[in-house]
Amino acid sequence: MIFRVELARHERVRRFLERPSVQRAVVIIIVVNAITIGCETSATLMAQVGGLLVAIDHIALTIFAIEILARLYAYRRDFFTDPWNWFDLVIVVVALVPASGPTSVLRALRILRALRLVSAVPSMRRVVGALLTAVPGMASIIGLLLLMIYVAAVIATKLFGEVAPQRFDELPDSLFTLFQIMTGDDWGTVAKEVMSHKPWAWLFFISYILISTFVALNLFIAVVVNAMDDAEPSPSEEQAQAELVELRDEVASLHAKLDLLLERGTVGRR
Amino acid sequence: MIFRVELARHERVRRFLERPSVQRAVVIIIVVNAITIGCETSATLMAQVGGLLVAIDHIALTIFAIEILARLYAYRRDFFTDPWNWFDLVIVVVALVPASGPTSVLRALRILRALRLVSAVPSMRRVVGALLTAVPGMASIIGLLLLMIYVAAVIATKLFGEVAPQRFDELPDSLFTLFQIMTGDDWGTVAKEVMSHKPWAWLFFISYILISTFVALNLFIAVVVNAMDDAEPSPSEEQAQAELVELRDEVASLHAKLDLLLERGTVGRR
Amino acid sequence: MIFRVELARHERVRRFLERPSVQRAVVIIIVVNAITIGCETSATLMAQVGGLLVAIDHIALTIFAIEILARLYAYRRDFFTDPWNWFDLVIVVVALVPASGPTSVLRALRILRALRLVSAVPSMRRVVGALLTAVPGMASIIGLLLLMIYVAAVIATKLFGEVAPQRFDELPDSLFTLFQIMTGDDWGTVAKEVMSHKPWAWLFFISYILISTFVALNLFIAVVVNAMDDAEPSPSEEQAQAELVELRDEVASLHAKLDLLLERGTVGRR
Amino acid sequence: MIFRVELARHERVRRFLERPSVQRAVVIIIVVNAITIGCETSATLMAQVGGLLVAIDHIALTIFAIEILARLYAYRRDFFTDPWNWFDLVIVVVALVPASGPTSVLRALRILRALRLVSAVPSMRRVVGALLTAVPGMASIIGLLLLMIYVAAVIATKLFGEVAPQRFDELPDSLFTLFQIMTGDDWGTVAKEVMSHKPWAWLFFISYILISTFVALNLFIAVVVNAMDDAEPSPSEEQAQAELVELRDEVASLHAKLDLLLERGTVGRR
Repeated sequence: MIFRVELARHERVRRFLERPSVQRAVVIIIVVNAITIGCETSATLMAQVGGLLVAIDHIALTIFAIEILARLYAYRRDFFTDPWNWFDLVIVVVALVPASGPTSVLRALRILRALRLVSAVPSMRRVVGALLTAVPGMASIIGLLLLMIYVAAVIATKLFGEVAPQRFDELPDSLFTLFQIMTGDDWGTVAKEVMSHKPWAWLFFISYILISTFVALNLFIAVVVNAMDDAEPSPSEEQAQAELVELRDEVASLHAKLDLLLERGTVGRR
Repeated sequence: MIFRVELARHERVRRFLERPSVQRAVVIIIVVNAITIGCETSATLMAQVGGLLVAIDHIALTIFAIEILARLYAYRRDFFTDPWNWFDLVIVVVALVPASGPTSVLRALRILRALRLVSAVPSMRRVVGALLTAVPGMASIIGLLLLMIYVAAVIATKLFGEVAPQRFDELPDSLFTLFQIMTGDDWGTVAKEVMSHKPWAWLFFISYILISTFVALNLFIAVVVNAMDDAEPSPSEEQAQAELVELRDEVASLHAKLDLLLERGTVGRR
Repeated sequence: MIFRVELARHERVRRFLERPSVQRAVVIIIVVNAITIGCETSATLMAQVGGLLVAIDHIALTIFAIEILARLYAYRRDFFTDPWNWFDLVIVVVALVPASGPTSVLRALRILRALRLVSAVPSMRRVVGALLTAVPGMASIIGLLLLMIYVAAVIATKLFGEVAPQRFDELPDSLFTLFQIMTGDDWGTVAKEVMSHKPWAWLFFISYILISTFVALNLFIAVVVNAMDDAEPSPSEEQAQAELVELRDEVASLHAKLDLLLERGTVGRR
Repeated sequence: MIFRVELARHERVRRFLERPSVQRAVVIIIVVNAITIGCETSATLMAQVGGLLVAIDHIALTIFAIEILARLYAYRRDFFTDPWNWFDLVIVVVALVPASGPTSVLRALRILRALRLVSAVPSMRRVVGALLTAVPGMASIIGLLLLMIYVAAVIATKLFGEVAPQRFDELPDSLFTLFQIMTGDDWGTVAKEVMSHKPWAWLFFISYILISTFVALNLFIAVVVNAMDDAEPSPSEEQAQAELVELRDEVASLHAKLDLLLERGTVGRR
């Protein structure tokens, strides 16, 4: 008897959580909280309405914590089958930690709560889902790109470490500089600096730019071709499909008529 | 009787406005006016032929005002069903306001009149229409991008606000700087500035660049895939389509012949 | 009789010009000449082998002039139907002019002769042809882009001309600066300069970057979609096409058989 | 008899080399060696564990040399038919040379050994193979791009060599600067420098940027269209294909039935 009431109760909690009005309320709280955390970065606003902002923040966090506990209660084990629930859980737990801690980095990460907007709005969820499905197809090319940057960074550290120590002193510096060059940011200045000591360095920089651009381009193409393949068939393709199906029906009815003819021929001839 | 004359008159105005020669004249006036407004920015030209430029400007604006009133009179309620008419109306009204006001910003916006070229030239109208249809499909990804920039800006303000106040002092500064980094402009300099105080900041900048590039790339792909789907079927597809239709006709005539055979068989057998 | 000999002679010239060995020789002369003109830019090389370089240049130009005259003689009126012949003619004529003139600009343009490589190598000709066919489809969007830059330049000159005279003093300066911003080069610096006087200027710059990027993106997509439509059908499409043709043949032979049946039925029944 | 034992032995070596565990071991050694070479760039690490790093390097190189010799022995002539074997052989030979030489450049290139990861991991091999197949289709456009840069560099050297000697003094400087401009890096600064002496230089720079961007864009499109054509048919295309095949089978069985009818008609009538 008690068990039955229990079950009914968590079912009732679930229905409450799935109400559109409740879900909309959660979205609104996420947005309001994101804005108040943003406002907290302003010293002026903190001096004027700091108490209010902190209060809203505490209320929002309390609501999030209650909501996630309610969902845990309502869905039980099913809760952990949806990766978006894990996402929400981690964000709320992370948000609860800095609320008591003194570290500034953790306090800064409180705004990650705003990312719950992604899991709360279905269309954003779908977009992120689509983005993530593109990742596995890119793994090999990303691996190649990383390998290429690593090899180039080791070479650059050995060759240019002494003449341009602020760019290529140690491996991490070289990795950063080469990533910067790959994005095309200010590479001319870096190359000129090195070339003033080692005039043949243009060979390294231009090869690196051409190869990395080419690989990145192919990474990009892999994603586009992937997206195209997943795209729904075009209207003209669908029409052709429909026409083919209709054609097969017509041919099937031709068979039926011929079968009738053959049968009659047999009957009539006997 | 009076009603009938009225109706005929606004019909006549409409036919006059729709004449190709009148429409061409409007396009020419828009272009001439755009050039004269451009010339007005030159102090030398203003000193020499300033009076003429201002006069042409007044004449052009008068013609635009009369044309828009004539269209209002000619099309009546239908005027407001075409968004391009709204566009023209707003531009002319905005252009009339600064003509009497002293504010320099409003005077600078007079050149927006040149945008009427878009509504006056059908091929431009189509291009802009096509651009706008791409926007709704991008809404979710743009939302994601904005959310991401906002979250990154709050984090950056908290973490780097003190060490790089000219870049990340307040939330608006951070938003501007992060937009700049997303476009790839000079991000190396910004990152180096912050990294001289907080060496681990490369993690923030490189993550931000990779994620924002990846999301922007997917925004781009969404637009391309959309454009592809809207594209007309290729010639080979059209040919296949035509062949399918022909094939169905042939099969239909096979049916007719078989029907004849079946009928005869029945008749012959009786 | 004389007429006949004449005709045969220009026919013979044409066959000579169309020989693969002659065409290869022309390509080699173009390449050699391009290299010597490049070498002429070096003061060191000019001091050492200047006479030789100039001599090769004169010989190459003479050969080009003779070749173009021979083609004019050989093809007569047909010469002017191929735009590539016009291209060659203009380049050779332009090359002949500076050989006698003192102006440095015209001398610098002598290297344009190297572009004859495009008309002399068929595969390059095809590539350039393909590039040019993409242009008409882009006309409307390019027009829109130019209109947008013009409007933005007039507004920027009016609003920012006084606070950033080195960037936006006159309309041509603004046009240059806005083109530079559109390519994403150093726009942060320009925007910061203006924003130090007019803090709201970010609105102008960010709107301009977003709109111009969006229009340029659509220009790009128009070209891609165009290229896709022109692309040859894929193997799978071709196979489907072949299958359809075969299917129609089979159906046609079904008709023949049924016609035979119908005819016999008629004959047999009479 | 001896011959037979020989054959069996190299067959045994081959099977050993093809074992998944052996191949995995080679991959691990490549990765470990890549890391140790990276660590050797750090003066701190070299001071602490330099001996260990060098020892690992020597061991890895020995293993690579033995492995390549074993492969040569196992595959004999077949070894040279696979380009990836050539790749491995060249890398190991190059790695062996600097181990005894004093030149710093050759020592820096030791890290190229890490590229053996590409040949050792099948999925990376496939990606690089796919990248390389895209190259021939790009040859014409790359040729056009190189020709264009060369022509522009000769013109720029002649025209701007005197006013901006640090950018356009000699042909190699111009080539570097124009490559830099093509990548969009800092071109505004270069153009402004030249324009302060030759105000009309904007014409050269803007034309160059527009043309090179347009050609590069088409290079990019050529690669995308190529990749699309190579892509596997979409599910909807495959379904249409299957439906067509089925349709042909049905029509073929219609033929069989009609043949039966025709035969009977003939038989019955006799």
